[in-house]
Amino acid sequence: MRQDHLISATQLSRDDVEAVLDRAADIDADPAAWRQRHAGTVLGLCFFEPSTRTRMSFDTAMKRLGGRTVDMGPVESSSVKKGESLADTVRVVEGYGDAIVLRHPLEGAAKMASEFVDVPVINAGDGAGQHPTQTLLDLYTIRENAGLDDLTIGIMGDLKYGRTVHSLAEALTNFDARQHFISPESLRLPRNVRYDLHGSGAQVREHTELSEVLPELDVLYVTRIQRERFPDENEYRKVAGQYQIDADDLSDAKDSLTVMHPLPRVDEIAPEVDETAHAKYFEQAHNAVPVRMALLDMLLEDN
Amino acid sequence: MRQDHLISATQLSRDDVEAVLDRAADIDADPAAWRQRHAGTVLGLCFFEPSTRTRMSFDTAMKRLGGRTVDMGPVESSSVKKGESLADTVRVVEGYGDAIVLRHPLEGAAKMASEFVDVPVINAGDGAGQHPTQTLLDLYTIRENAGLDDLTIGIMGDLKYGRTVHSLAEALTNFDARQHFISPESLRLPRNVRYDLHGSGAQVREHTELSEVLPELDVLYVTRIQRERFPDENEYRKVAGQYQIDADDLSDAKDSLTVMHPLPRVDEIAPEVDETAHAKYFEQAHNAVPVRMALLDMLLEDN
Amino acid sequence: MRQDHLISATQLSRDDVEAVLDRAADIDADPAAWRQRHAGTVLGLCFFEPSTRTRMSFDTAMKRLGGRTVDMGPVESSSVKKGESLADTVRVVEGYGDAIVLRHPLEGAAKMASEFVDVPVINAGDGAGQHPTQTLLDLYTIRENAGLDDLTIGIMGDLKYGRTVHSLAEALTNFDARQHFISPESLRLPRNVRYDLHGSGAQVREHTELSEVLPELDVLYVTRIQRERFPDENEYRKVAGQYQIDADDLSDAKDSLTVMHPLPRVDEIAPEVDETAHAKYFEQAHNAVPVRMALLDMLLEDN
Repeated sequence: MRQDHLISATQLSRDDVEAVLDRAADIDADPAAWRQRHAGTVLGLCFFEPSTRTRMSFDTAMKRLGGRTVDMGPVESSSVKKGESLADTVRVVEGYGDAIVLRHPLEGAAKMASEFVDVPVINAGDGAGQHPTQTLLDLYTIRENAGLDDLTIGIMGDLKYGRTVHSLAEALTNFDARQHFISPESLRLPRNVRYDLHGSGAQVREHTELSEVLPELDVLYVTRIQRERFPDENEYRKVAGQYQIDADDLSDAKDSLTVMHPLPRVDEIAPEVDETAHAKYFEQAHNAVPVRMALLDMLLEDN
Repeated sequence: MRQDHLISATQLSRDDVEAVLDRAADIDADPAAWRQRHAGTVLGLCFFEPSTRTRMSFDTAMKRLGGRTVDMGPVESSSVKKGESLADTVRVVEGYGDAIVLRHPLEGAAKMASEFVDVPVINAGDGAGQHPTQTLLDLYTIRENAGLDDLTIGIMGDLKYGRTVHSLAEALTNFDARQHFISPESLRLPRNVRYDLHGSGAQVREHTELSEVLPELDVLYVTRIQRERFPDENEYRKVAGQYQIDADDLSDAKDSLTVMHPLPRVDEIAPEVDETAHAKYFEQAHNAVPVRMALLDMLLEDN
Repeated sequence: MRQDHLISATQLSRDDVEAVLDRAADIDADPAAWRQRHAGTVLGLCFFEPSTRTRMSFDTAMKRLGGRTVDMGPVESSSVKKGESLADTVRVVEGYGDAIVLRHPLEGAAKMASEFVDVPVINAGDGAGQHPTQTLLDLYTIRENAGLDDLTIGIMGDLKYGRTVHSLAEALTNFDARQHFISPESLRLPRNVRYDLHGSGAQVREHTELSEVLPELDVLYVTRIQRERFPDENEYRKVAGQYQIDADDLSDAKDSLTVMHPLPRVDEIAPEVDETAHAKYFEQAHNAVPVRMALLDMLLEDN
């Protein structure tokens, strides 16, 4: 990988992706060996939107590489409130950190920031835009559990607004994956995403019922349907209820089915599923650490 | 000590307690020797309620052992706001930290959390429940200043709602301690706590006036009477005023009397007392560091 | 330098200042050599007011010296809300950190705090009072770019309320500097500051137009004129507009002119100036790290 910044999953070739996943696997195999790898490095954390797991896992990743982090803190108590531009904020933080992790509510923010600074910028989510390290940890979890070759995956829930889903679907077009999208009509993949997927020759089908496709799946990726997408509470309950799974629903699945979820979940997956061998969503959350360690390591060694 | 988690002071035998206090004393005697003891360790801090001194002293303790911390941040900006369950949150944080410190407003939260994760969980306060490391640092301060054998202690203030007080009283039943409880009638020890103390054979007496017992005391443990416990402001002032001490009040005390307070204080102890040899409440606050270092060290080496 | 605390820039002699700047220059020349200098040290951060760059740069400085930091967190969720006094808070934090960085809204807070604790206290801004490390990094930036001997400096903007400006002006009286103050009539230097400057024999002149003095300047220090200083929005716009600079305004300046700003800026300096060789405000912000490292190093080695 020869990258200055990580802005979008689409900037990564299949080889790039595999290089990150390979390094993550190396780290997973022997984390203690990486403990001093980046001693002396300081990572700047700029979260213009709250985040628990993305922030904590980047923080953990840098520390497990022996480095330190400095955090801008909540935007409400920052210079941003005094009218400072994003470009100015990141140019200041560039003087503190050897790399910058940026989350921002506006699409394009990470790209813009990367044009103002000389240290690597990692996009940790820019509004409706990209969240490439989430995609990488999803791919890592799929590869570890089901493999990325000859994969049949179902992606279910809110496919219209889910940034995570769009990035993952796009990234999977680099691999030999059959993608099934399961959602209510009102939350289908947006037309532009469907066009892009078809344009890249992806093997894509859409469904409204999980049962149509469950027995074939190697991986089922569940996402949350947000109440605020529905004007009516009853309508929400009716629709959301159809895309929740429990242990019973999974009786038709392969024994080897891997169930994933980007978390946090609310009711999409019943707690009883946690006890089954299908449940890999906590493992998926934990994979954030080796994958973000791998990525930090590669960006820092190149720069 | 052979413990997976620290949920309650009651789970600790007298030998367990003494083992922690002995190790804290070792640390206090030569802190520099412990500086790299847990290099490479990451401690997850999950505070579902604000805390200054508990959070800061755990943070300090881990760092003085050479480790790192990752903090969930305020609950207002966490996944909890999206409806995530406590069980899910701690199972995610388990992937970041080698142990978890948990504060939560609901009694029983730490116990519940400990059942979902494989890393040690330390209860840093669960509502009206337990706060065992506070009890340990109180015991350490008593032992260092007055000894835990043949001890006469007075515990004064809000004895009804004070979690700290109940834990300490209970823990002292393992030692040769005469306990005097001094409070207004309306803030007496709850009946169940009194029953438990009597049941364990503790030497317990209750008073409404400090002067009845002050000359006998080796230790006076003062707690804050909270305004919100009284419907009427005047009633609050009248009652609280009777349980505040100044240098004059202490003229009848032994020269060796140790005055403690879990802090923060408001008016319970006049600033002039700070200048006397009785005042040990800042030392008590500082003891949080070696005691929490000792505890982290013991839980981490066992796991 | 033989100092226990750093409360005010005025406590520093010219020799003291130069010792800090010399050490900062040493650090800048070879930061890696300082990476383990204060391993094992813990710095307590007590910010009773929000701060982005001061807090982050102290945090970075301590970490780049190999140490750790523990942060009190926002005052809204601290013991202060329960009525704890500043004296109590710092006496507690003294048990956690080997030094304390304090920002507080009240003038005199840092001095008061320093009288209650045995560890070094560094004033990181006390209301309308002092912010001595800002002054040191300003002096460092001036020295690196224009030198502190035979200096002609213009200080422009809000000269009435700007704490930064008063400290800098005062510190410059130790050096061979001609100081020009450029501001609207309503935001002139306060009378007491002018008297002090004249009393110390400083070479001082006041202007309402930058053009009167721009061609002579080696350094132009721009500060923000805050909207809230003006009862009327239109009046604000009219006045503030006269003290904003763009590339065109600088055409009369020396090629070597150094433009500084304590940041954050809003409209005071047009973005196009960033691209010119005059712009040193980001470098100035970055200088916070070596200067604060130097200062921490000197206070910690003395104590």
